[in-house]
Amino acid sequence: MNEKLWKQSVFSDGTELFLSKSCPKIGEEVTIAIRILKDSPIKRIYIRYLQNGEETVKEMSLSDIDGELLYYKCKIVINQNTIQYHFIMESSDNLYFYNQKGIYDHFISEKYDFKILADFQKPTWVEDSIFYQIFPERFYNGNEQNDVVDDEYSFNGFSTCKRPWESAPGKYEQYGNLDFYGGDLEGIKKKIYYLKAMGVNAIYINPIFSALSTHKYDCIDYFNVDKHFGGNEALRSLTKVLHDEDMKLVVDISINHTGNKHKWFIENMPYYFRDEHGKYECWCGVETLPVLNYENADLRDVMYKDNNSILKKWLKEPYSIDGWRFDVGHNVGKMKTSYLYRQIWREIRQELKSLDSDIYLLAEHWGDSSEYLQGDMWDGTMNYFGFERPARKYLGERDTHLGWKIKGNMKKKNSRVFMEEVIEHYASIPYELSKLQLNLLGSHDIHRIGNSEEISKNNLKCGIIMLFTFLGVPCIYYGDEVGLKGGRGEDSNFRYPMEWNEKKWNKEIYDFYKYMISLRKNEKVLVHGSFKFIDISEDILCYVRFDKKKAILFLNSQSKNEKKIEIPVNVIGSFMKAELLLEKENSIELKGNLKLTICPEQTLLIKLY
Amino acid sequence: MNEKLWKQSVFSDGTELFLSKSCPKIGEEVTIAIRILKDSPIKRIYIRYLQNGEETVKEMSLSDIDGELLYYKCKIVINQNTIQYHFIMESSDNLYFYNQKGIYDHFISEKYDFKILADFQKPTWVEDSIFYQIFPERFYNGNEQNDVVDDEYSFNGFSTCKRPWESAPGKYEQYGNLDFYGGDLEGIKKKIYYLKAMGVNAIYINPIFSALSTHKYDCIDYFNVDKHFGGNEALRSLTKVLHDEDMKLVVDISINHTGNKHKWFIENMPYYFRDEHGKYECWCGVETLPVLNYENADLRDVMYKDNNSILKKWLKEPYSIDGWRFDVGHNVGKMKTSYLYRQIWREIRQELKSLDSDIYLLAEHWGDSSEYLQGDMWDGTMNYFGFERPARKYLGERDTHLGWKIKGNMKKKNSRVFMEEVIEHYASIPYELSKLQLNLLGSHDIHRIGNSEEISKNNLKCGIIMLFTFLGVPCIYYGDEVGLKGGRGEDSNFRYPMEWNEKKWNKEIYDFYKYMISLRKNEKVLVHGSFKFIDISEDILCYVRFDKKKAILFLNSQSKNEKKIEIPVNVIGSFMKAELLLEKENSIELKGNLKLTICPEQTLLIKLY
Repeated sequence: MNEKLWKQSVFSDGTELFLSKSCPKIGEEVTIAIRILKDSPIKRIYIRYLQNGEETVKEMSLSDIDGELLYYKCKIVINQNTIQYHFIMESSDNLYFYNQKGIYDHFISEKYDFKILADFQKPTWVEDSIFYQIFPERFYNGNEQNDVVDDEYSFNGFSTCKRPWESAPGKYEQYGNLDFYGGDLEGIKKKIYYLKAMGVNAIYINPIFSALSTHKYDCIDYFNVDKHFGGNEALRSLTKVLHDEDMKLVVDISINHTGNKHKWFIENMPYYFRDEHGKYECWCGVETLPVLNYENADLRDVMYKDNNSILKKWLKEPYSIDGWRFDVGHNVGKMKTSYLYRQIWREIRQELKSLDSDIYLLAEHWGDSSEYLQGDMWDGTMNYFGFERPARKYLGERDTHLGWKIKGNMKKKNSRVFMEEVIEHYASIPYELSKLQLNLLGSHDIHRIGNSEEISKNNLKCGIIMLFTFLGVPCIYYGDEVGLKGGRGEDSNFRYPMEWNEKKWNKEIYDFYKYMISLRKNEKVLVHGSFKFIDISEDILCYVRFDKKKAILFLNSQSKNEKKIEIPVNVIGSFMKAELLLEKENSIELKGNLKLTICPEQTLLIKLY
Repeated sequence: MNEKLWKQSVFSDGTELFLSKSCPKIGEEVTIAIRILKDSPIKRIYIRYLQNGEETVKEMSLSDIDGELLYYKCKIVINQNTIQYHFIMESSDNLYFYNQKGIYDHFISEKYDFKILADFQKPTWVEDSIFYQIFPERFYNGNEQNDVVDDEYSFNGFSTCKRPWESAPGKYEQYGNLDFYGGDLEGIKKKIYYLKAMGVNAIYINPIFSALSTHKYDCIDYFNVDKHFGGNEALRSLTKVLHDEDMKLVVDISINHTGNKHKWFIENMPYYFRDEHGKYECWCGVETLPVLNYENADLRDVMYKDNNSILKKWLKEPYSIDGWRFDVGHNVGKMKTSYLYRQIWREIRQELKSLDSDIYLLAEHWGDSSEYLQGDMWDGTMNYFGFERPARKYLGERDTHLGWKIKGNMKKKNSRVFMEEVIEHYASIPYELSKLQLNLLGSHDIHRIGNSEEISKNNLKCGIIMLFTFLGVPCIYYGDEVGLKGGRGEDSNFRYPMEWNEKKWNKEIYDFYKYMISLRKNEKVLVHGSFKFIDISEDILCYVRFDKKKAILFLNSQSKNEKKIEIPVNVIGSFMKAELLLEKENSIELKGNLKLTICPEQTLLIKLY
């Protein structure tokens, strides 16, 4: 057997095939499994884990055979908060180390160990969700009575301006983020039927607390929903209806900074970083956004510790939101030599999860966020680093985050780079957290994928398929599903008012979103199945979601030519039949390896069972 | 230019060539540099670093040209405790990311970023030291009056036994670690001339505080030096003489556990992990070693916080030891769900460095210790993971740590595996810490490298050359330098009494140690120079220490045949001459690439200048 083949067959993760209990309690015993092709050169498999910091090595037993795959197992008692492990495989002349990142013949860092989190307070509803992100001011005007009117107030040299729904947002230099369209919470409530019809069952909304700008990241009062969004009553009413419909609501908040019109700032409260001259620190040089200083214990109390603190108030009745999305999570608690972030986030988690372990703690992070995703801080990130950036690069774009900071181009369309980037992220976090990452193709902070000239129509569809077949939770940015207009460059171009005239929709895209959502809902293997890349070539991307009975294989070609491909199905499991999911002609022969032909920019989904 | 060549030329680190100030203070400005061959395809180089958690990207300027190497530079103001950065290099069609681990064309983890530590409290004397580890009971009997005598006391079913210096230590089942030879601190003092003659200027001694066993890891009184070692006065006297000779002393201590005859344990003080039935936790199942519980604030006070605490007492006058070597550092503060280790180690560092920033905090760790080596806990580890284990494997042995836990063998003699393992460790810690790692070929916990049948005489010499030319501080385990006898398996076999009869020495080895020590002392590039691997082939290991004016190249062959090698000297610097250091015939031609022939198991050291 060639080395590539047996190495591809080695697998373990946190699904029930490989871990008997995903979130065990302290004191419970779990069974851990690893599998490998039976004709591999591996003679013995050990598990190597840490007990009280001490390296412990145990030989695993050959326990099951399923088709050509051998399952080695062992039991471990969970006696500490995190059990971290990797496997050591012994051939006649070598040792191999297998962790979440891959197989190596040299010692490896413990960063990529498999990890079991004991007593992990996991939100139970997140995995099965289809999220939809709404920028409230631009989604739907449900109540014209509360609209901002022309010249209602001024801020930072600009005056408010009411704009017609059909018009394009203007630049910052023209409107100063004071160009309002009238979207509000009642508008979201009125469009719940629209979301439900699509299959959406969770909403993440950008900030809603009183603030002057359209984006509301410049909060002036965390205790009240902005009156132009309908005030507190509108939020209470929205969550009530959503919960009646079995839907969830996650709300965005910036606890890193307030607006400079917040009374805390105006009244010179000691909640901010200030030097002896009163000079304050602001977020990324934006003077209207003074940064909060969590060295101040009163601020910690009012923000998250007190029973009536800001972060607790909205989670409790009557508002009962289901989670927070923390803006600029990577900045919070970091200012020059003040680095309190670990303490802040651990305390926030403890305080909020003690109200309800089911709340979802999601944060913004564009880079390597693995430190935050070890079970004691966040549940998930906006998965730019492990999904959106690699995916959009693979589909043909420059990087959406680094791209604007450098002059040059990036090499495009390379499945190896995509795999390396995705694995870097997923391999560095416990599997339970992998399932909670919020995958996205875009957000209010980047130009819409549908407005990208570099991404062809075929590749856009490929991206949508990836979104709904990937490990993690899919999130649709409002309007992407109808091909909403927009542009590049300025933020305002990513925040066009939602198109409600169905005639102007891109029906093909809309139907495709609906199809992929229903596929994810019907094929639970796409939610709960193991995730595994299959390395074929640099111009072919292949991964599979699988459990013991079923697999769904994703295959995309960026080759310029038609390609013949052969996929070793025996490394995935024992399957009798194959079926093409996206095509009219859905029969496909499965005899030993899966043999097929793929066209340039074609994406195939193949069900194996 | 081929890709391998220009990639080999890319370099930066924490030496003065690439960082204008290695331990800057908050507020200072530093210049960071990176270099690359001038004909490389790279058009622009950026530095990417985090400021208050925010990704910041700055283009670097081409500032210097040295021979064929271009230096790109930029200035950064140090405004936070750790500045972490990597470089982004732009070609016409790709982006490359360069961190301490290497060059990648995909996004990378921040784990391997370069790091500048502001206000780092670095021991200034460590880098220039040649360490020598002494197991006090077996080094030299300086005072026969204080020797343990037969049946002086009993412990754990055994009685003390005085053994003749020339006899081999017995097994545990025979003597229970109560077989004494009479070594003591006065013995060390009397042999200072021996150490000085060799070039040693720092000593690390295994535990010396009152305990019943020969190894003294089962402490019964941290406040007193064992009377059989001469008591407190002997320590005072030893450090006095050492300091007069400009030598340093680091003392081993286990703060993880005591012996079960410690009065704290006997008197049932609340310093230990105990359940409601009084059952205690012990270290790795050894019942005589009850584990200390740092959840207890009084224990933290007596161990390290109080002015007269244990860890402070011995650092202060009149004892004035120069540092601690913490036994089982990876276990301290970790017991089931009690994981206080981060707090404990940070507090220990703060408390002890506030006495004197020059003390050396060294700890035992056999695995991935990178978490401890970020500037806020330890200064160094016994470098098993990043040097000893890779080196002895490369030289022909099974792994010295994992080897006894598994049945199989490891593949031998592969420079790629060696490089991967070394880089994994060094790339994950700040450069300032790299220089403080205690490199070793063995210790009291593993069989002597000189007693290893798998390691040939040539390869043993290669190991010694590596020890004194590697990045980090070399430490000789007592007796290795004279070819001291011993065996494998039991600890007692690694702790033979020192051989003081020169006729029984292996003079060739002894002279070789002396030569290598003097070479390291005379060629400061081996201490302060940059460290860089040069990838040639799997059977050739090549690395270089260099600064702007000089380089010393290490080259070893594990090939079965004589090999012709060509080394691209232009990726190291601009040098006119080459000289063989270990050979009688030392002339070697340098015209463009360095061309030479190397024999099986030969090691060459080549000076370039």
